[in-house]
Amino acid sequence: MADRLLMGPGPSNPYPEVAGALVRPVVGHLDPQFLAVLDETMARLRTTFATTNALTLPLSGTGSAGMEAAFVNLVSPGDPVVVGVNGLFGERMCEVARRVGAEVVRVEAPWGRPLDPAAVLGAHPHPAVIALVHAETSTGVRNDVATVGAGRGDALLVVDAVTSLGGIEVAVDDWSLDVAYSCTQKCLGAPPGLAPITVSERARARLLERPSSWYLDLSLLSRYVEGDGGTRVYHHTAPVTMIGALHAALGVVLEEGLAASWARHAECGALLQAGLEELGLVLFAEDGARLPQLTTVLVPDALGDAGDEAAFRRRLLDRYGIEIGAGAGELAGRVWRIGCMGHTARVRNVETVLAVLRRELAR
Amino acid sequence: MADRLLMGPGPSNPYPEVAGALVRPVVGHLDPQFLAVLDETMARLRTTFATTNALTLPLSGTGSAGMEAAFVNLVSPGDPVVVGVNGLFGERMCEVARRVGAEVVRVEAPWGRPLDPAAVLGAHPHPAVIALVHAETSTGVRNDVATVGAGRGDALLVVDAVTSLGGIEVAVDDWSLDVAYSCTQKCLGAPPGLAPITVSERARARLLERPSSWYLDLSLLSRYVEGDGGTRVYHHTAPVTMIGALHAALGVVLEEGLAASWARHAECGALLQAGLEELGLVLFAEDGARLPQLTTVLVPDALGDAGDEAAFRRRLLDRYGIEIGAGAGELAGRVWRIGCMGHTARVRNVETVLAVLRRELAR
Repeated sequence: MADRLLMGPGPSNPYPEVAGALVRPVVGHLDPQFLAVLDETMARLRTTFATTNALTLPLSGTGSAGMEAAFVNLVSPGDPVVVGVNGLFGERMCEVARRVGAEVVRVEAPWGRPLDPAAVLGAHPHPAVIALVHAETSTGVRNDVATVGAGRGDALLVVDAVTSLGGIEVAVDDWSLDVAYSCTQKCLGAPPGLAPITVSERARARLLERPSSWYLDLSLLSRYVEGDGGTRVYHHTAPVTMIGALHAALGVVLEEGLAASWARHAECGALLQAGLEELGLVLFAEDGARLPQLTTVLVPDALGDAGDEAAFRRRLLDRYGIEIGAGAGELAGRVWRIGCMGHTARVRNVETVLAVLRRELAR
Repeated sequence: MADRLLMGPGPSNPYPEVAGALVRPVVGHLDPQFLAVLDETMARLRTTFATTNALTLPLSGTGSAGMEAAFVNLVSPGDPVVVGVNGLFGERMCEVARRVGAEVVRVEAPWGRPLDPAAVLGAHPHPAVIALVHAETSTGVRNDVATVGAGRGDALLVVDAVTSLGGIEVAVDDWSLDVAYSCTQKCLGAPPGLAPITVSERARARLLERPSSWYLDLSLLSRYVEGDGGTRVYHHTAPVTMIGALHAALGVVLEEGLAASWARHAECGALLQAGLEELGLVLFAEDGARLPQLTTVLVPDALGDAGDEAAFRRRLLDRYGIEIGAGAGELAGRVWRIGCMGHTARVRNVETVLAVLRRELAR
């Protein structure tokens, strides 16, 4: 595989320290040595999510498995579920919720603009669940989950932190989030494959006894990750290698410090966004709600038809080994998504992509 | 992590060639270089499963996700599903099927003995699905899936090949299996984390349009792995690193040759089973139905209470770095499970574990 500079919507380039973890000898999923790594990984996830939630673990699937686990463990057929929708991943939440029988109440904002927390809170008198995306990977917009958390009442608040965790502040306990899930391959700097998830005590008390998914059944999983009367109860074979990689990546994140990691992402995002505007490009996400780690920018008119913009991205990949992301959903062909996440979030990389864009847009 | 000799029910020790794949640079899940690796991985899986099924892919979860995908994509509430049960994983199939609403018809055999194919075929006049485990990891028993395949009629046949694939023959097309799924960490010699699955054309025609699981929706996944009109449609971020590891492991398996791999597993299993009997131990699985790659042996009377046998296994782990497996389900405390799978299936390792058992049982 070529050595890419990964500046799309993820995966980002993993922290170099992860490689050593990937090639450590495989041990069994019930080996005391592995269980110590798992426990420490869970502790590091708690710190990263800013929570004391006991049930905080890496699920054995990608970030989308985290989304599915949230709904499948909490939603019974007919439950009213309010979903904020201002991008592809809000849409995905609706689809996942509908498949487990939710009565979905959509609260929309135009793609590129943040959700109105008051509209989300006022959409239904007694929702079982309120769900929204913290950092919309399709648009580069940040939604205000803290305000929704402050007013959530009896509803359980499910938050998609796939693109936010590690890149901007995520404060699960302070913001009263009941379930938050993320991924490994964006701002945490590991390869893709796991979905960190955290579950509050009040959400835990409302986990379904027998959700439609056995694989993602959080009650069963808790008996393995926490043990049951001191015994780790086998559920499925934990992906020990990927958990070792996440453990190492979280070690890097926490050694740098979360605040320093957020500051680094903020600096890179600001530099990138200013640089794109200097190139005459137009940022898509509303000013004030822009994510530093994921920037959407309109495809220049000269590359306006889809074939040309795809060829442009392909040239960046082939000539420079730089990946930037295509638009997704209704933004396909209309925007590029430029990520600065995890280990990729370095000013050197920002200068590189700006220099290459400058040269190639002038051709 | 210590360098263990992994002779439990999995994970086994990965092939050494896998390490190089794990530390190759991460590339994007839509990068042409990765898609070429994915395509080749799928082709290698077809060879390994002995099938021409187009829909043959690595699911982004462990083997249990493969089981869940089979049922969730094929079973509607109220469908009669015949499940053969002679061990823990047959039981698990019943549970997974029930959670998606199946009317489960159990066909049992005692743990340690194979299922009767005629009983499986005669259990219901028109089952939607017949499901059984090829190699029962909990008992070390091989079930005759070929005979069930020959008589399956209109039913779809779902086979758990988690412990069989790569270790004994699995002939998906010749045996008329409609869905077979496996894992990566046993006889294929990669770390845990993916579930290879293959789906026949007749099963494909009966995939549910909107299964309860979005993450494991095979129709949606096909649009990414096969493309839709030439375009790979994003579903979730593929675990590129683990797929690279599987690609490398399958390369080792196919370079050795499937028949040679089966022969190596057969030789190791026979040597191990004869050696255990020479030590005065009693094999649990019925003669004639024993798997070479996973051997169950009764815990000696002298270690009969659960604490002692656990301490014995712990001593093997701590003093020798050898993992053997505990009994599972109703066999907990009553048997050990000794695996010889994938790269671990070497006569040197068999001699090692026999020598250590001889010494430690004499203490």
